[in-house]
Amino acid sequence: MKKIKAAVVGYGNIGRYVLEALDAAPDFEVAGVVRRDASNVPDELRGYRVVDSVEKLEGVDVAVLCTPSRSVEEQAGKILAQGINTVDSFDIHTDIAGLRSRLTPVAKEHGAVAVISAGWDPGSDSVVRALLEACAPKGLTYTNFGPGMSMGHTVAVKAVDGVKAALSMTIPTGTGIHRRMVYVELKEGYDFSKVAQAIKSDDYFVHDETHVMQVECVDDLLDMGHGVNLTRKGVSGKTQNQRFEFNMSINNPALTGQILVSAARASLVQQPGVYTMIEIPPIDYLYGEREALIRRLV
Amino acid sequence: MKKIKAAVVGYGNIGRYVLEALDAAPDFEVAGVVRRDASNVPDELRGYRVVDSVEKLEGVDVAVLCTPSRSVEEQAGKILAQGINTVDSFDIHTDIAGLRSRLTPVAKEHGAVAVISAGWDPGSDSVVRALLEACAPKGLTYTNFGPGMSMGHTVAVKAVDGVKAALSMTIPTGTGIHRRMVYVELKEGYDFSKVAQAIKSDDYFVHDETHVMQVECVDDLLDMGHGVNLTRKGVSGKTQNQRFEFNMSINNPALTGQILVSAARASLVQQPGVYTMIEIPPIDYLYGEREALIRRLV
Repeated sequence: MKKIKAAVVGYGNIGRYVLEALDAAPDFEVAGVVRRDASNVPDELRGYRVVDSVEKLEGVDVAVLCTPSRSVEEQAGKILAQGINTVDSFDIHTDIAGLRSRLTPVAKEHGAVAVISAGWDPGSDSVVRALLEACAPKGLTYTNFGPGMSMGHTVAVKAVDGVKAALSMTIPTGTGIHRRMVYVELKEGYDFSKVAQAIKSDDYFVHDETHVMQVECVDDLLDMGHGVNLTRKGVSGKTQNQRFEFNMSINNPALTGQILVSAARASLVQQPGVYTMIEIPPIDYLYGEREALIRRLV
Repeated sequence: MKKIKAAVVGYGNIGRYVLEALDAAPDFEVAGVVRRDASNVPDELRGYRVVDSVEKLEGVDVAVLCTPSRSVEEQAGKILAQGINTVDSFDIHTDIAGLRSRLTPVAKEHGAVAVISAGWDPGSDSVVRALLEACAPKGLTYTNFGPGMSMGHTVAVKAVDGVKAALSMTIPTGTGIHRRMVYVELKEGYDFSKVAQAIKSDDYFVHDETHVMQVECVDDLLDMGHGVNLTRKGVSGKTQNQRFEFNMSINNPALTGQILVSAARASLVQQPGVYTMIEIPPIDYLYGEREALIRRLV
């Protein structure tokens, strides 16, 4: 069997877990890891090629982008233009449709496939939301996140003047409403109440119930566990009160890394273009012979 | 907008709910209802054409088969051969792959699409099972059904000598194991303990914990509610203990009817061939403009 050659672009939290998922997948091999500074090779990467751009790796079928959402468009554009597939976990919900339409001409022109927003939300949760609308077209879906660390909110807190380290936890209070529990270490000479006020006035927090607490050591609180409780109550045909619920309790970057790898596999069997996860047949994410998968899963 | 013209083939429990789901869908119109005896027109069908074969209806895009699983293959074969799409909720799990491969040449030769096993299990549960394997490729999935009435088991009980009316309830006891609670009305002159023994020795019941009870009136116990609790605990990449759970509490034939209609919609945008639900992009089941759906659901 010819294996799928994947490049890991970016080696932060997600990149580490993508590498593990690629190692665990029977149909993938790692072409190499792409880092801005290719001379920075931590011990665990000694067995891999580490380069500073995808072009320096041979025969790459798909590049798994593990860089921040804001850099996805530029990175994906460049790599798709080389005829190489990309997958990413772009998570700025309001710009997913925009990213999709902007990357589409590049992908099509170069005969490549991009799977965008392939994490757990957006991503696998999106598939559940779509499926539940097929089951009950009228009704309400609520996606409740957490308890778990919000990367975006944590970064926003860290940008506030006087904050040395931060953790923003997302706490679900039901019907898609969330409380923000923010833990901060202060830099010397700052007034906690002013910093707390600045955090609460930030765009990221201004619409939510937010509690800010000062702690000695944020690092002692860090845990990558996260969760979702997604509910839909709706109408099938003309029958009311159909109830659906999806729960998960997971290691956040590990799940994101795995879904990126599953999406990378699916990218190889789509027509050129750009896809969100709800536009791909679920079977395409899976390793194995098609008929055996149908026998086992359907 | 040109509406999708659907024929409802069979007018039992499922057929009734399919008709409601078609009525509720903005993009469908009902071409007619196909019954073996077309002169048997109940009051609620007065507004529809009732015929004894699909050929007698004009411009049918898709036929929704609401007949027993055992007659699906013959029905679908005949209708696909006319170049008309079919959808069904064929639920004999061990023969789904077989049905798929046997219908494929017919569908392809006549440029038609069949979506098979499009109910909730097989069907939407299958999509959840596939998605959860994409999230955690190693691990165990358990599908726990009920509490709810099993159609198949109830029919098996009714076939036992001495049984006048029956209800077989499926009770989940976890890890995919089920208890069968069987309620029977006896015909005059039969011995309950012998009937109970015959039921327990039937192939449908012999592997499960089965309790048989005699009641005065089975009809008083009938309720179409059903449910599922589907769990997966597995490994994402190399990270253990990732936990997922899907629950629903639903009117059984109403959900089946709705999913059949959503699958009928999807059938119109697939290439000729035969598909199970895990082989279709989830977005295709939904009514609405593609970009708007992506904006709302992803």
